[in-house]
Amino acid sequence: MIFSSDNWAGAHPAIAESLMAHAGGYASAYGTSELDRKVEKKFADIFERDVAVFFVGTGTAANSLALATANRAGGVAFCHREAHVIADECGAPEFFSHGARLKPVDGPRGKMEASRLEAEIRRFPLDNVHGGQPSAVSLTQATESGTVYSLAEIEAISAVAKGHRLPLHMDGARFANALVSLDVTPAEMTWKRGVDLVSFGGTKNGCWCAEALVLFDLSKAHEMHFLRKRSAQLFSKSRFVSAQFDAYFAGDLWLNLARHANAMATRLAEGIAAAKTSRLAWQADANEVFAIINKDVAAKLRQDGAVFYDWPVPHDLEGKLAKNEGLYRLVTSFATKAEDVDRFVASC
Amino acid sequence: MIFSSDNWAGAHPAIAESLMAHAGGYASAYGTSELDRKVEKKFADIFERDVAVFFVGTGTAANSLALATANRAGGVAFCHREAHVIADECGAPEFFSHGARLKPVDGPRGKMEASRLEAEIRRFPLDNVHGGQPSAVSLTQATESGTVYSLAEIEAISAVAKGHRLPLHMDGARFANALVSLDVTPAEMTWKRGVDLVSFGGTKNGCWCAEALVLFDLSKAHEMHFLRKRSAQLFSKSRFVSAQFDAYFAGDLWLNLARHANAMATRLAEGIAAAKTSRLAWQADANEVFAIINKDVAAKLRQDGAVFYDWPVPHDLEGKLAKNEGLYRLVTSFATKAEDVDRFVASC
Amino acid sequence: MIFSSDNWAGAHPAIAESLMAHAGGYASAYGTSELDRKVEKKFADIFERDVAVFFVGTGTAANSLALATANRAGGVAFCHREAHVIADECGAPEFFSHGARLKPVDGPRGKMEASRLEAEIRRFPLDNVHGGQPSAVSLTQATESGTVYSLAEIEAISAVAKGHRLPLHMDGARFANALVSLDVTPAEMTWKRGVDLVSFGGTKNGCWCAEALVLFDLSKAHEMHFLRKRSAQLFSKSRFVSAQFDAYFAGDLWLNLARHANAMATRLAEGIAAAKTSRLAWQADANEVFAIINKDVAAKLRQDGAVFYDWPVPHDLEGKLAKNEGLYRLVTSFATKAEDVDRFVASC
Amino acid sequence: MIFSSDNWAGAHPAIAESLMAHAGGYASAYGTSELDRKVEKKFADIFERDVAVFFVGTGTAANSLALATANRAGGVAFCHREAHVIADECGAPEFFSHGARLKPVDGPRGKMEASRLEAEIRRFPLDNVHGGQPSAVSLTQATESGTVYSLAEIEAISAVAKGHRLPLHMDGARFANALVSLDVTPAEMTWKRGVDLVSFGGTKNGCWCAEALVLFDLSKAHEMHFLRKRSAQLFSKSRFVSAQFDAYFAGDLWLNLARHANAMATRLAEGIAAAKTSRLAWQADANEVFAIINKDVAAKLRQDGAVFYDWPVPHDLEGKLAKNEGLYRLVTSFATKAEDVDRFVASC
Repeated sequence: MIFSSDNWAGAHPAIAESLMAHAGGYASAYGTSELDRKVEKKFADIFERDVAVFFVGTGTAANSLALATANRAGGVAFCHREAHVIADECGAPEFFSHGARLKPVDGPRGKMEASRLEAEIRRFPLDNVHGGQPSAVSLTQATESGTVYSLAEIEAISAVAKGHRLPLHMDGARFANALVSLDVTPAEMTWKRGVDLVSFGGTKNGCWCAEALVLFDLSKAHEMHFLRKRSAQLFSKSRFVSAQFDAYFAGDLWLNLARHANAMATRLAEGIAAAKTSRLAWQADANEVFAIINKDVAAKLRQDGAVFYDWPVPHDLEGKLAKNEGLYRLVTSFATKAEDVDRFVASC
Repeated sequence: MIFSSDNWAGAHPAIAESLMAHAGGYASAYGTSELDRKVEKKFADIFERDVAVFFVGTGTAANSLALATANRAGGVAFCHREAHVIADECGAPEFFSHGARLKPVDGPRGKMEASRLEAEIRRFPLDNVHGGQPSAVSLTQATESGTVYSLAEIEAISAVAKGHRLPLHMDGARFANALVSLDVTPAEMTWKRGVDLVSFGGTKNGCWCAEALVLFDLSKAHEMHFLRKRSAQLFSKSRFVSAQFDAYFAGDLWLNLARHANAMATRLAEGIAAAKTSRLAWQADANEVFAIINKDVAAKLRQDGAVFYDWPVPHDLEGKLAKNEGLYRLVTSFATKAEDVDRFVASC
Repeated sequence: MIFSSDNWAGAHPAIAESLMAHAGGYASAYGTSELDRKVEKKFADIFERDVAVFFVGTGTAANSLALATANRAGGVAFCHREAHVIADECGAPEFFSHGARLKPVDGPRGKMEASRLEAEIRRFPLDNVHGGQPSAVSLTQATESGTVYSLAEIEAISAVAKGHRLPLHMDGARFANALVSLDVTPAEMTWKRGVDLVSFGGTKNGCWCAEALVLFDLSKAHEMHFLRKRSAQLFSKSRFVSAQFDAYFAGDLWLNLARHANAMATRLAEGIAAAKTSRLAWQADANEVFAIINKDVAAKLRQDGAVFYDWPVPHDLEGKLAKNEGLYRLVTSFATKAEDVDRFVASC
Repeated sequence: MIFSSDNWAGAHPAIAESLMAHAGGYASAYGTSELDRKVEKKFADIFERDVAVFFVGTGTAANSLALATANRAGGVAFCHREAHVIADECGAPEFFSHGARLKPVDGPRGKMEASRLEAEIRRFPLDNVHGGQPSAVSLTQATESGTVYSLAEIEAISAVAKGHRLPLHMDGARFANALVSLDVTPAEMTWKRGVDLVSFGGTKNGCWCAEALVLFDLSKAHEMHFLRKRSAQLFSKSRFVSAQFDAYFAGDLWLNLARHANAMATRLAEGIAAAKTSRLAWQADANEVFAIINKDVAAKLRQDGAVFYDWPVPHDLEGKLAKNEGLYRLVTSFATKAEDVDRFVASC
């Protein structure tokens, strides 16, 4: 009953086997091998257009490089108040971008509201050098709250960004989970909506360590080669990443793994919604479930081996939890088993 | 006949198998798993003392974090003129350290001379704010020229560093190759000689992607946790690194792999030294051989499938090569086969 | 009727004369002249203890260097939501500190509340590397809202900072105005309350360009010499700053100028409080008055030559202004004349 | 007999008087006053074209901002081995540019040789991400050795820079001294030769503190406003700089002051050349004289009140000084008096 995070799972057997299969022989290093090329082409297929792909080691690296390439002097990037880039990356985006400021934008359940984004950007008129200048907008898909922006919502955010000529970045640490939740194509969820850069995550969805920064503006690729190398994210044996992605994409494994994780979350959510003492805090769109559970029940579950995190109660839920209730986050993954879900639900 | 670089080889089967073996099940993330702990303890065993170990993704990251933690305002770090940190990392050390300058120090065959190091450091007296202040010394073991500092040579460098109260960093991208070349213990080659920080490389010696920054001064560990995270080098599924190191250290695999690579280099060097038209440029101490080869012979070898790089001719060899001779670098690895060496030598 | 800002005034005649008087002759450069030494000693007298003083060119530089020297890897500095460092310095503190994040703390009228500061700091427990680590607390005295922290309020903020072992910085761009408002000594308002670093501003109070960073922890001085030089704030003809401070301190000119500016603000505030259609938004403690004025009246005043800025309405005043009322900021200075104040008030 | 540096002099009386004259009254702040506008127009007149002018506080700031705006990811800037940016600014260019590396280029007497510059740039081919990429070329006019690049020499450097599409920066801390030495116009010495950015120094030539960064590419001006503010170089009472420049340019004061300083250097050089025991180390083109003087004579001169610095002996002069001879630098300024020169020479 491990629901702590999708990064507590290891690697899918197909990923591990691919690493084994490519371990032998020689290949040119630093992203120049045939396998690297093959996987880059696969990205172009998936996104239905030319893209520039940069493998990196962590989602933090992909996000930070994206914000670095978008940054301007005195730059301010806008993201949701709870976004990973602002809350959980120890200032990496600020470091990579040489001090870009991240300005929090409000909105319920992890999603920026377009109108609030517009209002925040307007606080930085370009003729006021003291305030700094807007440089980028970053949205997280799926969000930190387990919700998923609809295509229309992405488009609304994008319209605001474009209105201010700002590049739009998508933090896709859980890209696949969002994609299968919306049941759309990668192109539809990204550049067709005006997204300019994507942090494409594979690690949380069954890889060991496979993240990619995808640029739709190929004119930015030259600079990114140097930005990536300079930030120590160019791996010598780069095929250890491409071997993972090769297996990840083969036979739509990545979509199937995400579908499984999401299905497990739905099963968990439905179980909790139907439970006696527990209830859903809000709708789960992808592979994260936020539940209000009696604290004694939660303690009992943990005694029985369940692992999951306490979660801070958002403002609009304050006062809506009973004194002995807590808010908890439950994350499913490619490795989650239905019996663990059922065992958890049975105790709720 | 792949002698281009030791990072053209993939992963040793035992490393790949370890990744396979640890792919299942759950483990806590971000460097907190039991396997992470086990491997960290192994590092302490290897170095015969308490150490703080930080897994990172690339040697560039380990080097850059080392120089970052050592840096001071206006800091100047000293390294050999051809050191990887100054020549091949696209400014990563400068980036991680917020602008530390790398000051080249001369010396034959990749080794700084202690007297020259002393002279260079003296050019930055602490009461001259305009020049900046010395912050660190970095030596590479084995060097970029395939040579290995003797224990006495390390001690001489260390004495200079200590005389100026500067931390001493060892870039150990080829740590194991140097170690078995000297036939000493890790402790003898590092902290017993005054080394304070080690970039401990596993990738070039049979891992996919396994590097570690080892700190002997544990009081620096708190800061390094944040420096590493902020530079996007804290992997969520950190056991993908520790699983590699676990196999790497088991049964002294790492030493055996390095011995093999070095033996192949010796075989290659002896062959070239005995060849008709080719000769050694200088003595090979570890797994890199620098050879002076007739350019037609080199072209013929490449036609036959040999891969190796041209190398710039150092000043003291200028004029000592015939017009139709070139200087070439040949690198062996854990994966190098004796028959490939022999086939290469036969054509020299 | 110039009430736009205290930096619209030029220099007090005594300051200009001092520059004239010291223009001749030679003096050693880069902060080493006898006059520099004399002024540094004067700072020690004023603060009744040994201090390290660093002249810089702007308040932004003093603030940014203070936060730079206080910063740690992944550092987070806490300040009021409307503090100059977070709102008006174009990311300079982030730049100087290599990406320190500024975390806004709430509190009415420009003052952080100690309890809220405590709560914000607690959101960054030291064992959560993802969030970053607290590095400093910065308070502004007088605040951007023209209020002044009482000694007790400073002590409360200081207690929170000390409880987390964080250095406490005071942005004293209007140090003198706050000091004469409280009628205390510099020592009482700073280190006796636990303040560790002070941005000591002279420019807004009658100098051309004279700012100093004052450190009470002398062990930080060595590093600051390099930090300052590296940020291009070490002036070659440093006596152009010390000549200003020399005149500034002579005969308590600085206190007298601040008393004048504050007196003009009081006269203005009393006039507005007694006016027919205008009223004070809140109490003016120093040399800034925030007034609610009928928009037509404000327009008429501007037609008559008055210069002053619109000001955003704080949350707690929302709904308390009539539709045709605006919030305005009025700043007085050493150069403000009583007749201008009276002329302004007469039209309110 | 103060020949230590031109920054040991104070301010010319006309500069100090201008500060006095502009001290009264109000003016809008942060570079927006009428006087600021007037002086900016004067810069356009002087350079015979539209320019973007940014006042800053130090030459280090002007140089560092120039290299910052020119920098690219992994950028390498080329300058003479002894250039101020590389030798005397404590890493400020590296700091402002987030880690640009400064690559020394050789050449006699402070001047880069175009052929050596070409060779150094070629060491960084754009397809080698490991080495970094060239970003800018910086030349110093007049040089640190008191020499002046001829127009043809500037053109040769410029041709190399343009051949690699690199912006060319001129460090003009002693711009006026070089200008009157060549007897050309500012336009002829800069943009007509392909110079893109100029650090225009006034401080060493009679101002208290007046430096300007001049951009000929106006499309870079938007970014520079933010770069400057973010580096704490935007002065609130900016007219304290423009008031200096206003007097500096009036009646060609700046050229006259430089002519005086150069004439004093010529007088000094001629005297030393004709002296019994002393001789010139090399030709003085501007206001710096490098002399080989008997050490006893130098000691005696210092006893008599002369102030001047020892200077490191360049490689090509090694062995050409007698054992009891030293190399010394003597700098003249607007304030140097002929009688001091004559008194010095009389003892040589």
